[in-house]
Amino acid sequence: MIIQKSDNLRISTFDPENFSFGNTFVDHMVICEFENGKWGEPKIVPYGPLGFSPAMMGINYGQACFEGMKAYKDKDGDVFLFRPEKNFARINKSASRLAMPEVTEEMFMDGIKTLVDMERAWIPHGEGLSLYIRPLIFATEEILKARISEKYMFAVVATPAKSYYTEPVSVKIAEYYSRSANGGVGFAKAAGNYAAAFHPTRLAMEEGYDQIVWTDDSTHQYLEESGTMNVFVRINDTIYTPPISEKILDGVTRDSFIQLAQSLQMNVQVEPISVDVVMEAQKNGTLREMWGVGTAVVTTVFKSFGFQNEKYDLPELSDEDSYALTIKNKLTSIQSNLCEDPFGWRLKVEKNN
Amino acid sequence: MIIQKSDNLRISTFDPENFSFGNTFVDHMVICEFENGKWGEPKIVPYGPLGFSPAMMGINYGQACFEGMKAYKDKDGDVFLFRPEKNFARINKSASRLAMPEVTEEMFMDGIKTLVDMERAWIPHGEGLSLYIRPLIFATEEILKARISEKYMFAVVATPAKSYYTEPVSVKIAEYYSRSANGGVGFAKAAGNYAAAFHPTRLAMEEGYDQIVWTDDSTHQYLEESGTMNVFVRINDTIYTPPISEKILDGVTRDSFIQLAQSLQMNVQVEPISVDVVMEAQKNGTLREMWGVGTAVVTTVFKSFGFQNEKYDLPELSDEDSYALTIKNKLTSIQSNLCEDPFGWRLKVEKNN
Ligand SMILES: Cc1ncc(COP(=O)(O)O)c(C=O)c1O
Ligand SMILES: Cc1ncc(COP(=O)(O)O)c(C=O)c1O
Repeated sequence: MIIQKSDNLRISTFDPENFSFGNTFVDHMVICEFENGKWGEPKIVPYGPLGFSPAMMGINYGQACFEGMKAYKDKDGDVFLFRPEKNFARINKSASRLAMPEVTEEMFMDGIKTLVDMERAWIPHGEGLSLYIRPLIFATEEILKARISEKYMFAVVATPAKSYYTEPVSVKIAEYYSRSANGGVGFAKAAGNYAAAFHPTRLAMEEGYDQIVWTDDSTHQYLEESGTMNVFVRINDTIYTPPISEKILDGVTRDSFIQLAQSLQMNVQVEPISVDVVMEAQKNGTLREMWGVGTAVVTTVFKSFGFQNEKYDLPELSDEDSYALTIKNKLTSIQSNLCEDPFGWRLKVEKNN
Repeated sequence: MIIQKSDNLRISTFDPENFSFGNTFVDHMVICEFENGKWGEPKIVPYGPLGFSPAMMGINYGQACFEGMKAYKDKDGDVFLFRPEKNFARINKSASRLAMPEVTEEMFMDGIKTLVDMERAWIPHGEGLSLYIRPLIFATEEILKARISEKYMFAVVATPAKSYYTEPVSVKIAEYYSRSANGGVGFAKAAGNYAAAFHPTRLAMEEGYDQIVWTDDSTHQYLEESGTMNVFVRINDTIYTPPISEKILDGVTRDSFIQLAQSLQMNVQVEPISVDVVMEAQKNGTLREMWGVGTAVVTTVFKSFGFQNEKYDLPELSDEDSYALTIKNKLTSIQSNLCEDPFGWRLKVEKNN
């Protein structure tokens, strides 16, 4: 790995008590170029603009995918990644579906570890605080033919993150729009999936909701995801979440929730959940909780949901009674090294710089 | 419009008899930036790289859409656009669906006309030759939040084009993959739609096909499009093409084909076409022709199609007997100013430079 240090470090201007999430970038980024059928040598360079023309294929044809993961700092200043091998596997699953070259484990893991190690000072410490890491692969060839690109870039950028979205949200069950098709790219973190969701989400917001619970595009009967999170429903004392499919992203948080729920002796059913079943449970009073999970916000509890122009409230549970918050607390404790890690999920980032 | 001329023109190196389509860019491009809720002043600048970081939203979230149109040079050197108002309307339809700001008619039309006028020397003259023009809008804000961007760029780049894909092709009717969902973005020229098609298309090519005839994702019974073209089927002497929907791009060539077919007294039915009907016609010998239409190649005639692991041949018709080629010839004559333009489709690009 080639390391080209910035001679204009911005870290001294960083205030961990007061920063803007998502556009405060750490001083460096990882980049690696693919050409002539192979990846070149990864480099760490100062964060900033590179030269791309508007004819770049990634922009024209959406040949681009990404990952979202976090590094957590504990009270001793040690820094941990959380199940990064899952993100590595997933970026390659996304890349394959979009006809892009896979990245090597070495490029991915060493790139991230080296960057995080160099940028430790940018990682805020405290509840809900972390460094959000964004690996991505995108097509860089400048050509106006709608065919597979021959040039790509793998990059990793990062921004300090606060916890956000902690208030319970109101969601709208999708009855018209959808985010994925049978035989489509819904299971991939394909760039285009996100833009496609913006307009429907804006419309839902105009109706007073915070996000959309996506349903299958054929019947709008089966729950898929909520916003950019996987979705869970609790009826009586059983937790349900839809199985992973070509239409549903295989979330790391979802998988961790399932394993934690089982280890906490909760009953978890991974099976399709229909809107009918949710409505039935709502009517007979057995619908206890619904929530979304994802790396960015860990858990978003739903306070109400909208369906067929009606809004239905969900019960307000105490932190102890809520399965969502019980599991969330367990998960964040593991992530931040506040407790044992029985699953071996934490990966310590060694100090080399 | 601000015009910043290149002091390093490449036009003298351009050989209209021998150039590579898609990555031979004309000397200039149009760019215009959107910020603080409004578009700035459009500029013509030398074609080349601009500065974007890998955190750019267009790359991360696929908030990007484009158009594809052509300018044709006649024997006197006059240059014409073809129905550009349709592309203007469509780019804004795409932009709205992706929660991007619409462009103004002035920006779009003046930008294109000025660029084409300046770059006349790059437009090859002759059968099937043209200048391919690519307007696009993409999100430029550098932020890692999955939400609507606040900054955009509108750009127009262009490349000389030859006719390609003139040989009849073999297509595979999609039975697993799909390009659009109900309530999705299939009707938009959304960047992400194209990348999503690359992998299925590559698989079809490995099976010996040239492109995929997309079918609806729920039942795979109804034809949608072929590759990046709209699709037509002729049974006996009736032409069928599926109606425009949220899953099918409203192609300019498709619309022109329908109007031309009608003006030629052909019977055209705009209605859903099922695979069953095609198979039935194939079996009883009434399936005469199938073809795709789009700006890039105008018409691609199908020589065979694959369905359920069988390949079926289509009859080989003479140019006169083929409806596809009869309409195509009429259309290209209008585009290249070789005949009258009863529909008022040509727009002459005035000489101002
Ligand atoms: C569409 C979608 N679903 C679910 C998730 C949750 O996945 P993870 O838990 O791996 O962050 C994400 C990413 O955050 C996502 O983009
Ligand atoms: C998906 C798709 N369908 C159809 C077409 C044909 O549209 P047009 O005739 O306007 O070029 C295109 C663009 O070329 C396309 O991208």
